[in-house]
Amino acid sequence: MIYLDHSATSPPNEEVLQSYVAVSTRYFANPSSLHKLGVEANALFQQATEQMKQLLKMNQGEVVYTSGGTEANNLAILGYAKKHAHLGKHIVTTNMEHPSVLEACRELEREGFRVTYLPVNKEGQVEMDVLKGALTDETILVSIMHVNNEMGAVQDLRSLKKVIQKNSPAVFHVDAVQSFGKMVVPFGVDGADMMSISAHKINGIRGSGALFLRYRIPLHPMIVGGGQQRNKRSGTIPLAEAVALAKAMRLAICTTERAEYRQWKNRILEHVETLSQIQVVGPKDGAAHITALAIRGIRGEVAVNFLQQRDIIVSTSSACSSLDGSISHVAEALGISKEWAAGIIRISFGTTTNGSDIDRLLHALTALNEQVK
Amino acid sequence: MIYLDHSATSPPNEEVLQSYVAVSTRYFANPSSLHKLGVEANALFQQATEQMKQLLKMNQGEVVYTSGGTEANNLAILGYAKKHAHLGKHIVTTNMEHPSVLEACRELEREGFRVTYLPVNKEGQVEMDVLKGALTDETILVSIMHVNNEMGAVQDLRSLKKVIQKNSPAVFHVDAVQSFGKMVVPFGVDGADMMSISAHKINGIRGSGALFLRYRIPLHPMIVGGGQQRNKRSGTIPLAEAVALAKAMRLAICTTERAEYRQWKNRILEHVETLSQIQVVGPKDGAAHITALAIRGIRGEVAVNFLQQRDIIVSTSSACSSLDGSISHVAEALGISKEWAAGIIRISFGTTTNGSDIDRLLHALTALNEQVK
Ligand SMILES: Cc1ncc(COP(=O)(O)O)c(C=O)c1O
Ligand SMILES: Cc1ncc(COP(=O)(O)O)c(C=O)c1O
Repeated sequence: MIYLDHSATSPPNEEVLQSYVAVSTRYFANPSSLHKLGVEANALFQQATEQMKQLLKMNQGEVVYTSGGTEANNLAILGYAKKHAHLGKHIVTTNMEHPSVLEACRELEREGFRVTYLPVNKEGQVEMDVLKGALTDETILVSIMHVNNEMGAVQDLRSLKKVIQKNSPAVFHVDAVQSFGKMVVPFGVDGADMMSISAHKINGIRGSGALFLRYRIPLHPMIVGGGQQRNKRSGTIPLAEAVALAKAMRLAICTTERAEYRQWKNRILEHVETLSQIQVVGPKDGAAHITALAIRGIRGEVAVNFLQQRDIIVSTSSACSSLDGSISHVAEALGISKEWAAGIIRISFGTTTNGSDIDRLLHALTALNEQVK
Repeated sequence: MIYLDHSATSPPNEEVLQSYVAVSTRYFANPSSLHKLGVEANALFQQATEQMKQLLKMNQGEVVYTSGGTEANNLAILGYAKKHAHLGKHIVTTNMEHPSVLEACRELEREGFRVTYLPVNKEGQVEMDVLKGALTDETILVSIMHVNNEMGAVQDLRSLKKVIQKNSPAVFHVDAVQSFGKMVVPFGVDGADMMSISAHKINGIRGSGALFLRYRIPLHPMIVGGGQQRNKRSGTIPLAEAVALAKAMRLAICTTERAEYRQWKNRILEHVETLSQIQVVGPKDGAAHITALAIRGIRGEVAVNFLQQRDIIVSTSSACSSLDGSISHVAEALGISKEWAAGIIRISFGTTTNGSDIDRLLHALTALNEQVK
């Protein structure tokens, strides 16, 4: 089986799972307990947090553990907006964010906030003057994803940050769920102030993620109770998940994009040029690990089925929206014509991908092209 | 080491961890994906859900997976209230609930709901006429915990349900985090309409829990995004956690309270009668697995330290409130005098407890009594 759906979820790393089990077994106590087992557990928790901070070169700032990327995005947006509503009630985001950002924004609209959904250009990028035009003195938060999960469009976070800083008092939240571990994510003075990641996209475990805060940014908690995590996120601290996340991050983090991903993507792009019924729909110089193709005249599901009969696993544009069968909001945002938008598939690489997988894929794409001609 | 702090958290069962790892490895795909790995993962997810429903004899109804008991309680209260505000804005709960219930209620108060915090009697029970007096036609939700985590007080859920049904249109939410797996939890027509549990209290894994709905009760989601779990709780479905939770539930569920827990508790109660400086503060016929004691003239932390020097792990009243050192709200609710309230320890049994642990504990309590005389 050739798994080319790493952007939907990635197979857990064995070492990460082993750490998870070892910590669950040996350090099972509640890190909030006063007794020595609790103190030990809490020390390990602090250590995992320190490791993450070092990886991200956070001198100050905070780590908030969450149940995944969805909760991290929700917390950044709802938590920041509710806490800072007295400073302004305007939020800026884009029209191609992940639903966990878009739906959080819709919640805020119901509560009286104003949200601007920036359009993107054909490359899936926010243009600087478009962003500038949207910012006001009332803008408290800008949330823009780093890599788009469906099309692989990449934003220039450093330039966006400069525009935000010059033209508004807003903090900058970045959904780095698809970019962390695949490329460098600017985080800090010249990048994100808040950054969301999800463990299962970086060969970690499901139901685990984090929101990183560049400094002690006050947030209204989403999940309330015992006041754990400095009252930003209540619930018994999932120590083993935190240790596993630190390990997954350490194994995944990189200082450049992975060269073989770019080579593989280029091979696909070149090959598709020779196929009359298939075209590249995502930006060609977008993220190396995500390639979106469209097949003329058939639905994405049909192409997914065709490929899986050849033991190749890819997805339609996204796992989330795959069940309702509607046309992706990201395809709309990029202005992809109706003719092609229904037939989009996403090929995404990860740690288990290798060159021969790509050979097989190109072969199968040729066959698919013949089939629909 | 004698671990008598199972109510704070319990050691994960080995079989449960094994299932977790096996499913994480073999069925890692995203259950929302259209391809065959996704379909397989989704089938396993449905199977885990079915197992839970069978265990709880739910013919209809729904399971909502959460990141733990805290999120399940929050979702029941915030989710139900926000969705049903048009029917009334009155909530009834007690003054000795877990913070995840109390803080959710405070959120609702800030949003214009009225919350009645019922007092409990010296046994930690809600009296039926007190409940009846609080119910109105505007009461949409009653949330009462089954077993109190600090004192072990048990509510008569069947009688409470009858009173609620006769006197209001409210649904009945029960925090069963401390009772599930230790005794029978009435759930259904003559018990809870919504029930929260937490995996790590039943030898499951941390960061996992569920809210069970007796029928398809509409809830406003707390975590929004891809619309998973029938839009009640977004985020990539943590399949392995769900399977592990089903297994933990199957291993924990019981048809009566465990006889040895009651014997052990009675041994402690009898022994403490002979000690001049120690007294039982929780209800004597409360839950068999939780015993709360107070030591005169010292703080709970001091007693916890004394016992752990003898390799016995117990906690102060609760893990959550243990870090700030204030007097527990539950001790106040039960009317425990200041003289004793600062010196409370909680002894809680679980699957690894055995009779010789109790021998050692009684011995150590005698020594503690001598020490403070
Ligand atoms: C860009 C992006 N943001 C957020 C998420 C949500 O992460 P999670 O599945 O951990 O909730 C995903 C994946 O589903 C994603 O691709
Ligand atoms: C009665 C009760 N309710 C809810 C919770 C919260 O559960 P969790 O730790 O899974 O968030 C706890 C334990 O902390 C509890 O004892």
